[in-house]
Amino acid sequence: MTDQLDAAGRLRHLLTLDGLPAPMLQRLIERARTFVPPAAAAAPRGRELEGRTVANLFMEPSTRTRVSFELAARRLGADVVNIEGSAASTVKGETLLDTVYTLQAMRTDLFVIRTAESGAPAEVARRVADDVAVVSGGESHLSHPTQGLLDTLTILQRKPDLDRLVVCIVGDIAHSRVARSAAQALRTLGVRELRLVSPPELKPAPHEFPGATWDSGLDRMLVDADVIMALRIQKERMSATEIPGASAYREQYGINRTRLARARPDAIVMHPGPMNRGIEIESDVADGPQSVIWTQVANGVAVRMAVLLTLAGRSQAR
Amino acid sequence: MTDQLDAAGRLRHLLTLDGLPAPMLQRLIERARTFVPPAAAAAPRGRELEGRTVANLFMEPSTRTRVSFELAARRLGADVVNIEGSAASTVKGETLLDTVYTLQAMRTDLFVIRTAESGAPAEVARRVADDVAVVSGGESHLSHPTQGLLDTLTILQRKPDLDRLVVCIVGDIAHSRVARSAAQALRTLGVRELRLVSPPELKPAPHEFPGATWDSGLDRMLVDADVIMALRIQKERMSATEIPGASAYREQYGINRTRLARARPDAIVMHPGPMNRGIEIESDVADGPQSVIWTQVANGVAVRMAVLLTLAGRSQAR
Amino acid sequence: MTDQLDAAGRLRHLLTLDGLPAPMLQRLIERARTFVPPAAAAAPRGRELEGRTVANLFMEPSTRTRVSFELAARRLGADVVNIEGSAASTVKGETLLDTVYTLQAMRTDLFVIRTAESGAPAEVARRVADDVAVVSGGESHLSHPTQGLLDTLTILQRKPDLDRLVVCIVGDIAHSRVARSAAQALRTLGVRELRLVSPPELKPAPHEFPGATWDSGLDRMLVDADVIMALRIQKERMSATEIPGASAYREQYGINRTRLARARPDAIVMHPGPMNRGIEIESDVADGPQSVIWTQVANGVAVRMAVLLTLAGRSQAR
Repeated sequence: MTDQLDAAGRLRHLLTLDGLPAPMLQRLIERARTFVPPAAAAAPRGRELEGRTVANLFMEPSTRTRVSFELAARRLGADVVNIEGSAASTVKGETLLDTVYTLQAMRTDLFVIRTAESGAPAEVARRVADDVAVVSGGESHLSHPTQGLLDTLTILQRKPDLDRLVVCIVGDIAHSRVARSAAQALRTLGVRELRLVSPPELKPAPHEFPGATWDSGLDRMLVDADVIMALRIQKERMSATEIPGASAYREQYGINRTRLARARPDAIVMHPGPMNRGIEIESDVADGPQSVIWTQVANGVAVRMAVLLTLAGRSQAR
Repeated sequence: MTDQLDAAGRLRHLLTLDGLPAPMLQRLIERARTFVPPAAAAAPRGRELEGRTVANLFMEPSTRTRVSFELAARRLGADVVNIEGSAASTVKGETLLDTVYTLQAMRTDLFVIRTAESGAPAEVARRVADDVAVVSGGESHLSHPTQGLLDTLTILQRKPDLDRLVVCIVGDIAHSRVARSAAQALRTLGVRELRLVSPPELKPAPHEFPGATWDSGLDRMLVDADVIMALRIQKERMSATEIPGASAYREQYGINRTRLARARPDAIVMHPGPMNRGIEIESDVADGPQSVIWTQVANGVAVRMAVLLTLAGRSQAR
Repeated sequence: MTDQLDAAGRLRHLLTLDGLPAPMLQRLIERARTFVPPAAAAAPRGRELEGRTVANLFMEPSTRTRVSFELAARRLGADVVNIEGSAASTVKGETLLDTVYTLQAMRTDLFVIRTAESGAPAEVARRVADDVAVVSGGESHLSHPTQGLLDTLTILQRKPDLDRLVVCIVGDIAHSRVARSAAQALRTLGVRELRLVSPPELKPAPHEFPGATWDSGLDRMLVDADVIMALRIQKERMSATEIPGASAYREQYGINRTRLARARPDAIVMHPGPMNRGIEIESDVADGPQSVIWTQVANGVAVRMAVLLTLAGRSQAR
């Protein structure tokens, strides 16, 4: 875990949910709730970040996460600069750190960094100036903290008593930063039971998910589940024959209506997107009454507004 | 034709000009006129779309149309998100509809969609929430409604009596959404005569252009024309030998000064851009006194402001 | 030199520093100083360009220069449109001028143009409307005027008495627009001595750097230097064997601590970025106490704000 708190115990960067105290998670989630608009209402807005500059440094492509951060920042009044993949430093072989120093010298106040390189966000966080904050927008297979927060918020909206819930995450657990961040938040906040389901080849190391149970048999694990989170399967992994092919995966691990019926009748179904419809989830489930998939997306903007505000608030006085 | 009007007969989406009633076309054009700045004046602006989010979903690249919509939206105060080609869903194989649902969950109010896929904008329009609107930014060979409106506005600015005009469209009529949308608007508004000129290989099906005459001989068709609209020729089609090579095309269908002299002396010359100078149009015509090509571009922003305002106005109350 | 002044002698475009009178350079630099924020202060902002549109036309990729102009324009309230490389006209074979005419028709007030094509910015400047201005964001090997201004500002901040300074520029002088623009500004403002150092293969034509001395031996040239400016070496040139390989270059021309000790003890070290650490500059120098590299970047935004304001101010009355 990286030291992402300052001397006063306030959030200084957001790199991982691992080790964040429960009250801090709760405060972030409560703050996010204030940015969730009622059904047909306009998007909430503010001017708290007017004059601030947010740089989205996305080494891995991700339209949805980039747009979510971009809208969160702009709806709070910030200027947003997008730097993506090959358009970034990589073109001329500049290091990520030099790109960060350059943008910092241009008075960037907050960096959102998405990268396949483990440790890069923490390295950046160690190097930036005192009044500059770093948010992970997804780091390798390790961490995706705003996703973990939005998943937790989505669960709590529908099922506030976490200590009575059974949450079942299904898919490529071994490589999933989504699973890791959700598990960390849910565990800290006291979820009753966390079940992990994956093909044997994609079983995670137990120490990465303390307290969770793992099994390769989905049908058993769905019984009595309150929350089912299907993960996106990487087709590249399937072609590499590391895991079963698409149709075998669908057969054994796809969430369909028959399987869903094994869970509790009021169970909710989640997916971080983008979905491979017909592989890890069937369309009638994704679009059905138990799906909260679009609510997750909506909550994503709210969570990111809350995170940006919290981090920017620290240096507000300057 | 798609049902793009709501129960009260108001414009709900703008997908095609086909079937739009004349008064509605006239209202859009009149509204656009209010956004056309005098010669050296600053761009008109408003704040009517403050707090609204416009997403430009461009599956086909088009810098000029994308920028035109972007400036129209921003000059009315909207936040604009650009999602282009490979940066969009296609990277991860997400469907267009899931991309739309995602952006809608992030509180996008209006989608501009440009796509080579026939029917996609209408499909999106059927699926979005009640308070979300869809504008086609160009659909396959079928429809480019804001282009049709800006072309009509440009003609009316110079020659208000449409029922006395002879309009001659020259080029690849068979594959042109520009020709289709212009023809639909001009016919609804009562143009006297619409002439279509193309190589025989690119002759359109007659039922697609009811009331228009077609001929492969440009020189005959230019006689007495008040308006000459040259279409962009797709070089890819020429290399596929579907149509004559560049020099043969220029010889037979290029608009040059000699040909222009066959039209009425006050005829105007139009082109939707980007131009292949020296193929479908000669530079001395494109840059000459009868050209209204840059006026078309200026009118494009005005038309798009009018369309955005009209569609957003419907849900203003929320 | 292009005529970039108007009849009243005011700056109309900024294409090159060559031939700009000293008082004009001084006024731009003084204006830029007002936009340099104190150490931990927020970025200065204004609303002087509200309602104006700035188009960044970058035919060559350059994230840092594009972002610097983008932030400069937005912090003054302008709308900014980015059009880069293949996304620009090149996709459909449109000429640069037609792209400019198109954006001008959409009421672009100011173009920033970066291009490998010599003469293109001046050509655009000759063709735009009276109330539209052009700024070079880098032109071939010839000119990078805002870089020259920010380099001069950075030197003057630390060492105000230019007529007592020895400035030493090291690297691929022959192909460097950075060296040319810096040399032009420094000479006009009366630098005491300008020394150029490069491998013999990269020696510039003497008439391009009047008054400067050239030598291929770095160690000699560093003696008594007040300012050392290392240029970025193009690795593509090295692979083309036009110049020595990376390790030979580092050996002979890399700025390291030993070499730095030959200069004056208070000498400053500059680099336009992006750096090839370990080739033209060692990290302990780049990150050391004599480096002003990030100050250059910060000054870049300030200089661009000053330039945009100066050019826009000319047509403010409209």
